[in-house]
Amino acid sequence: MASGMALGVKTRLSPAYFIGVQGGNIISFGSGQPDLPPPPEAFEILPDYRDFKYGLIQGTLELRQALAAQYPDSTPESFVITNGASEALDLALRVIGRKEGPGANKVLMARPYYYSYPETVRFAGMEPVFTNTVEGRIDLDDFRAKVRDCRAVIINSPSNPTGRVEAVETLKEIEKIASELGVYVLSDEVYKDLIYVRENYLINGPRVVTINSFSKTYAMCGFRVGFLWSRDLELISDVISMKTHTSMNTNILGQEMALAATKAPRTYIEEQLEVWRARRDLIYQGLLDLGFDVWKPEGAFYVMPRVERPQDFVWDLFHDYDVITYLGEWFGAPNRVRLSYALDIEGIEEGLARIGRYLAVR
Amino acid sequence: MASGMALGVKTRLSPAYFIGVQGGNIISFGSGQPDLPPPPEAFEILPDYRDFKYGLIQGTLELRQALAAQYPDSTPESFVITNGASEALDLALRVIGRKEGPGANKVLMARPYYYSYPETVRFAGMEPVFTNTVEGRIDLDDFRAKVRDCRAVIINSPSNPTGRVEAVETLKEIEKIASELGVYVLSDEVYKDLIYVRENYLINGPRVVTINSFSKTYAMCGFRVGFLWSRDLELISDVISMKTHTSMNTNILGQEMALAATKAPRTYIEEQLEVWRARRDLIYQGLLDLGFDVWKPEGAFYVMPRVERPQDFVWDLFHDYDVITYLGEWFGAPNRVRLSYALDIEGIEEGLARIGRYLAVR
Repeated sequence: MASGMALGVKTRLSPAYFIGVQGGNIISFGSGQPDLPPPPEAFEILPDYRDFKYGLIQGTLELRQALAAQYPDSTPESFVITNGASEALDLALRVIGRKEGPGANKVLMARPYYYSYPETVRFAGMEPVFTNTVEGRIDLDDFRAKVRDCRAVIINSPSNPTGRVEAVETLKEIEKIASELGVYVLSDEVYKDLIYVRENYLINGPRVVTINSFSKTYAMCGFRVGFLWSRDLELISDVISMKTHTSMNTNILGQEMALAATKAPRTYIEEQLEVWRARRDLIYQGLLDLGFDVWKPEGAFYVMPRVERPQDFVWDLFHDYDVITYLGEWFGAPNRVRLSYALDIEGIEEGLARIGRYLAVR
Repeated sequence: MASGMALGVKTRLSPAYFIGVQGGNIISFGSGQPDLPPPPEAFEILPDYRDFKYGLIQGTLELRQALAAQYPDSTPESFVITNGASEALDLALRVIGRKEGPGANKVLMARPYYYSYPETVRFAGMEPVFTNTVEGRIDLDDFRAKVRDCRAVIINSPSNPTGRVEAVETLKEIEKIASELGVYVLSDEVYKDLIYVRENYLINGPRVVTINSFSKTYAMCGFRVGFLWSRDLELISDVISMKTHTSMNTNILGQEMALAATKAPRTYIEEQLEVWRARRDLIYQGLLDLGFDVWKPEGAFYVMPRVERPQDFVWDLFHDYDVITYLGEWFGAPNRVRLSYALDIEGIEEGLARIGRYLAVR
């Protein structure tokens, strides 16, 4: 179905290709960001805001106090506010990469993985290694074998791109293994408030670095306010030292908005979760009805069906049906595609209908 | 004058020690940020602001268009908007550190230097090397000898901490040498709008990376909006790729405020400059009257007198006179101290009077 000209483009497809492609007839299952607004508490502070000066590199005390109240046995000293979860991960990896430690200069992660992880590990001068997954969840035997050779592991439950949530027993076992080996655990929990199957389980331990963000829970991705939390205060101190030189304080108004967002009633998060659950049910059943082999999403807002000839699938759907999907190979899953369901019910229904029409003539 | 207890603290003094120390009777010549407000154009956009989504990693097109109009023969494609000048420098160094290039893995900078430079170079896996200065300006003979062995040079005119401005002939010669050798020039021009002696000279060339910020010109340090500009579009592309994984877009509201600030009338910048010039004249003459050996500040808002026993000077002034100054050794100038004159005339006069009283009993 793709033309000869299109073949050249197809091989160069990347997430960047789709950035800014929107409006008109486009249905995007591409980019992963909430379409819902932040809580009004967040933007109600804007009209009277007048503080433009440098803030503490570690983040404002008020925001760290609000976070400390959410984490067990915690104090404001154990948090650093960052330019989104991305910078939190980057700083943590750069700091860990410069330390003497057990294991080789390797960082273990599950595959499929969030597409930035391997790059961020390499930028920090380390080498990404991959543990297998079974049905989209970590294979503990494979994990056990590979982790011995690693400096750190990245855990991401709920997972972008799989939408899967690890069993609590798995997370506890990872805690135990990592603690015994002295391996750092970087736990990216940016979807912790979007779990359909249970409460979030907070991985805990002396060398655990929890990474989180206000982007997904409070729908303020563009403001780039994230944080890291750790009981390892030497690592926290090293992260602050590095951030002093590499970006200084996280934007001060974003931090005020994040603080205001934490004051939104708990119902804000609960209502969001019900919206996402309805969308999850719709797209999961829709994909099953279309005959896809697909893992049931348990958290976040992604689903990752297996497809034949994924490059054709992504390209043809975009070119001929105005539907954006992402290639699984960007996430280490070459036989799959990723669909984000961060769009309204009508959009999901229309997108599914178009995929159905495409499959009928494929 | 310092007590035995104080001696322990003195040896651990760092800029971080003074962060958040303000109010009461304190006169701070410490932190380098404007005390004046941003142009009203910048914060007048706040009440109606409602966009919270991810933006382009490279920065909003509108802001890059506004910048392209300020730079010769330029297009929006040659800019990346960053989390302040700090991230611009960090990204540029990390990208350059990963390239194959002429010279060893060394980065040349003038000493005294902005205190982040050596650290940022090391974090990027390279080695800082230092060129001598004469009267606070680059010694070109020494520069010529050392640059041959380097991958990149950092130029910072006007300089933080010296307040000196390089001669245009020096900058042109550096352009020529760097171009012949294929060495990158990272030109940190964050004080380009605060020069008392001439117009800014924009260093130009195929491997020049200009680094700038909205922090100083528009008094919005805490918002962390900076940028880099280069004719080397491969480097620009590499910086965008890295930023995609390490921090994503720069905070989107900060970019809107920066865009609004660019629409302030040119008189805003001109009036600021006259305020700074009056302060410069006052502190320079005041320090001369107190008998200091001091370079005349030609730009930015710093002055760097030579002092005997600088650790005692900084500690005693803080402890006994509530006056904050910074140790020159943090900037590679162990026989000097740095004073920022980012405070009002009354504050400068009072601070000078206290320094005078201290010197009288020292």
